[in-house]
Amino acid sequence: MSLVSDITALAPGQLLARGVARHLAALGMVTVEELVPTRGLRVDVMALGPKGEIWVVECKSSRADYMTDSKWQGYLEWCDRFFWAVDADFPTDLLPECTGLIIADAYDAEVIRMAPEDKLPAARRKVMVQKFATHAARRLQALRDPAAFAGLG
Amino acid sequence: MSLVSDITALAPGQLLARGVARHLAALGMVTVEELVPTRGLRVDVMALGPKGEIWVVECKSSRADYMTDSKWQGYLEWCDRFFWAVDADFPTDLLPECTGLIIADAYDAEVIRMAPEDKLPAARRKVMVQKFATHAARRLQALRDPAAFAGLG
Repeated sequence: MSLVSDITALAPGQLLARGVARHLAALGMVTVEELVPTRGLRVDVMALGPKGEIWVVECKSSRADYMTDSKWQGYLEWCDRFFWAVDADFPTDLLPECTGLIIADAYDAEVIRMAPEDKLPAARRKVMVQKFATHAARRLQALRDPAAFAGLG
Repeated sequence: MSLVSDITALAPGQLLARGVARHLAALGMVTVEELVPTRGLRVDVMALGPKGEIWVVECKSSRADYMTDSKWQGYLEWCDRFFWAVDADFPTDLLPECTGLIIADAYDAEVIRMAPEDKLPAARRKVMVQKFATHAARRLQALRDPAAFAGLG
């Protein structure tokens, strides 16, 4: 795994995710990317708030990227709030009104429409915070000590 | 923050922490370093198990390092199990019997004596998993996107 502070190495959706992560950090939330809440689903950005709030943000770099996503409604049951993150040129009229909207670039982002809240049951929230912690710590160790997961000394 | 896969950059206690983190990963736990459970305390290694188990591991590189630690009993109330991690030359007779013992080097570690379990109350466990998740995700973002916390574009 390589460091990704060189933004030329990032795909368009990852650039949006970087800006989203920066903005959510400024709001006091922490984020991870590519968490798998359940088999067959992988969220672009999962955010955790100070009181255990769970947000999911799906990053769409183009109309085509959005139109081919058949899975997004599956994310709703894994978060309190669901957002799309798109760039300033995206045709936002395409997006369902019942979802949140974030306009982002690689450097920052802004919440344009707050997502409605549909609170997770307590038991599922507990599972998601545990998954978030595990995912973040594994990725952190993989960056700090790459050999730890390669079976090398 | 720099990458620390170059072990020549690590202090003796950090070398032990690296080996501990590798061994605990092999046991199915995830770890972070230098988490602050409460003001004035900073644990060397905090580990999280798949069922939310919280272990604290204090790494002591020498007899002097151990003898000058006046805070370790303060860690007990923040974990289910408490361990010392020391190298193979450490005079382990010094260590209290009621604590766990891990022998470590920079490359791996082994649990020599399992720590007794003193289970966290559910409310505190919830707080600790949340703190663990927040700490791990912040450190991860700081490594992946150093400018995010520097106020730079």
